[in-house]
Amino acid sequence: MTSDAARDAIVPVDGQAGTAARRRIDALTKPVGSLGRIEELAVRLSAIAGRVVDRPYERPAILIGAGDHGVTAEGVSAYPSEVTPQMVGAFCGGIAAINAFARVARADVFVADFGVRGDLPAHPRLIDVRVATGTRNFARGDAMPEGDVELALAAGIAAVDDVFARAAYDTLALGEMGIGNSTSAAAITAACTGASAKAVTGRGTGIDDERLGTKRRVVADAVRPLAGASWKRIAAAVGGYEIVGLTGAILGAAARRIPVVLDGFIVASAALLAVRIAPAARDYCIAAHRSQEPGHRIALDALRLQPLLDLDLRLGEASGAALALPLIEAATRMIAEMKTFAEAGVAEADPP
Amino acid sequence: MTSDAARDAIVPVDGQAGTAARRRIDALTKPVGSLGRIEELAVRLSAIAGRVVDRPYERPAILIGAGDHGVTAEGVSAYPSEVTPQMVGAFCGGIAAINAFARVARADVFVADFGVRGDLPAHPRLIDVRVATGTRNFARGDAMPEGDVELALAAGIAAVDDVFARAAYDTLALGEMGIGNSTSAAAITAACTGASAKAVTGRGTGIDDERLGTKRRVVADAVRPLAGASWKRIAAAVGGYEIVGLTGAILGAAARRIPVVLDGFIVASAALLAVRIAPAARDYCIAAHRSQEPGHRIALDALRLQPLLDLDLRLGEASGAALALPLIEAATRMIAEMKTFAEAGVAEADPP
Repeated sequence: MTSDAARDAIVPVDGQAGTAARRRIDALTKPVGSLGRIEELAVRLSAIAGRVVDRPYERPAILIGAGDHGVTAEGVSAYPSEVTPQMVGAFCGGIAAINAFARVARADVFVADFGVRGDLPAHPRLIDVRVATGTRNFARGDAMPEGDVELALAAGIAAVDDVFARAAYDTLALGEMGIGNSTSAAAITAACTGASAKAVTGRGTGIDDERLGTKRRVVADAVRPLAGASWKRIAAAVGGYEIVGLTGAILGAAARRIPVVLDGFIVASAALLAVRIAPAARDYCIAAHRSQEPGHRIALDALRLQPLLDLDLRLGEASGAALALPLIEAATRMIAEMKTFAEAGVAEADPP
Repeated sequence: MTSDAARDAIVPVDGQAGTAARRRIDALTKPVGSLGRIEELAVRLSAIAGRVVDRPYERPAILIGAGDHGVTAEGVSAYPSEVTPQMVGAFCGGIAAINAFARVARADVFVADFGVRGDLPAHPRLIDVRVATGTRNFARGDAMPEGDVELALAAGIAAVDDVFARAAYDTLALGEMGIGNSTSAAAITAACTGASAKAVTGRGTGIDDERLGTKRRVVADAVRPLAGASWKRIAAAVGGYEIVGLTGAILGAAARRIPVVLDGFIVASAALLAVRIAPAARDYCIAAHRSQEPGHRIALDALRLQPLLDLDLRLGEASGAALALPLIEAATRMIAEMKTFAEAGVAEADPP
């Protein structure tokens, strides 16, 4: 599917359904507004669904986009690229953080290989939509050919199709794995928002001051020629296969009217590209958490998304998104299972 | 059980177990520190348990302390006292917000009647430890006789004993129901912390400016004679049966080395009394969230507890505590189920 077709497949969320949800929430047996952000979430989920949510969302899927980054040659990461396929193996084997957190949310975990360098053994939870074996070093030229951008986007949509062909999931949480990808996310965020390389570049998985200096310089140099560039140019210049794949996944889920729970900074950068392609996709996105990465806040502000959690996370692999899934289930149970004052026979607040 | 005996039954949390937990967490297949607050939680839960947690905590209990407040006669609440027993009925009937949220966490919900005004039909989930039918109006004298303070404290310990006689729960979340109890919590918080009545008094379930002015005046007048007062004097003067009962519940859970998840402002005021009785109880407490009530932040600061969630809640009934339970389960699954780099055969970070 092309980016144009992906955009055309997305309808705006249903504001009337959101208004109807708000009306029901205000009549439930609790003071008006007393469940704060959980109420907002139920309104948003109803707008996404196109009707007042009337059942618990208890079947979430987690999709982790994986890819490697040539820019690691510049020494921007604390880990070698070999860790990307190793961690994909850990996700499939059920021994990583995301697997532990997925069990809490009773979520199924899938991994999409958009561009890992190295062999990955086949696994039932591994979706092979690989476009290339990692990006090129964007400090020395484009990260990928422009033609690969549409391929990676289509791969993301295909990965979502694959996931939803397996079961009728009600929520999609997105995460990523790719050594070096916070450098790519920083460059995308700077290019899309106009923020400085310094402001968007952080320590990723935990680099020292020297590497942080290198990383900032690499980002600044790469972003300089991208002023006013199209989303496709930005993606080709500094993107990652898994990041563009996740952009496609966001568009694909929005077209299915499925809420998309964004993990951290890297997924937020994918969302910045998604809203460039299809502004209507934004309202299908729910920001799970605010990470330690400084660029994450900038990306979320540009997306006008307020995160649900603030737990000083900086792991990625959808870990923060998984932790937010119980809040989404809670919002749906609130609106679907609570009674109104009239239904429950409880006295309402005195009239003011 | 007397307050002295309750204090003596609590041993300090085990710092060595916490240190051992930190050592294991740092060796897991993720960058050191990358799971932020979830890591801190696993350290704390290990210190509470007295050993490195090695199994998921997936059996939480929720205990809602209920009681009525004579101070409602001053017009400090938007709701009539009849709502207290009505909401207890809703909790038992499974139709309130806490029931919806408890299903997310797969938690069992119990209600302890410490001092509700009016009849409550017997129910398997309702624990009858009633000391009196509500407090007296503390704007016109003590809220309860000093003798009732020890009775309510013992009732809280008895309620915890009742809950843990039913099943081997691994976590206890505490909440409350009691029209007028944010006025009592404000007075307790002011008396325990020295903060001004204005700073600790908020809109509770949603009162208008006029009632807020009344509420502040009632709190200020009641707190004035309590400078330097003992916890027992404070509890007798401005307490509530459910608040003192929850103080007992905190002490009882700490004596069992069970983590106690505190809901909002009212439960935090109970914790302020608990740490006056037994400072060691503090380390067994986990603050679930920061509510909209201004006094909550003051109480949490005094307790040196940083809340896990910040979702603009102000409902009570353990709703925020229930929403935090999945984070506790996640922390235990992280430390119990993730592998170390050595166990998983994944490359570690380059040496700096």
